Amino acid sequence: MSSKYPVGPTETERCIESLLAVFQRYAGRDGNACSLSKKEFLTFMNTELASFSKNQKDPGVMDRMMKKLDMNNDGCLDFSEFLNLIGGLAQACHAQVMSSPTSGGSHKP
Amino acid sequence: MSSKYPVGPTETERCIESLLAVFQRYAGRDGNACSLSKKEFLTFMNTELASFSKNQKDPGVMDRMMKKLDMNNDGCLDFSEFLNLIGGLAQACHAQVMSSPTSGGSHKP
Repeated sequence: MSSKYPVGPTETERCIESLLAVFQRYAGRDGNACSLSKKEFLTFMNTELASFSKNQKDPGVMDRMMKKLDMNNDGCLDFSEFLNLIGGLAQACHAQVMSSPTSGGSHKP
Repeated sequence: MSSKYPVGPTETERCIESLLAVFQRYAGRDGNACSLSKKEFLTFMNTELASFSKNQKDPGVMDRMMKKLDMNNDGCLDFSEFLNLIGGLAQACHAQVMSSPTSGGSHKP
């Protein structure tokens, strides 16, 4: 149990800690540890999100994702740009769940 | 182990699943299960992020947070607005880690 959390972290706190830890793990692999280089982004995608990236038939998809996420066009992804990636994927999953016939849509189950 | 992940979910996949599950858990408490009402937002903050919310001396902080997050002013938070809250908190934690003298800043440890 972490000393930061007297009764252990909540699911949301664990999730925020994971986002920081995962970013730091991949951003720290080469050069500037504050951002993901193109190579680090690809390593992240092929390791952490392989179930998504392996389904992309078009080899240009990862290049286009990186370009779209790199809002300030500095050739790498800072933490804020990384969060946009996670947020985009979470929104896509959420939309899929909401449109599923078994989800109950906007009604309570 | 989930059948969606042949070798189990990665830390990033678990995190995305948690974001969806936590939102659905609190949004589903009353009325529209696709958004957090003010009451659901307060329950979420006081349960999942109590270590943050209990340190707010000003009782108006939660009201102002809700107003600021509610980009379309519909009186509740949809999943995208909820993700902005999580992203904002993650960025605040990341900035704190990066400014810590023991973090190594932009250098590799």
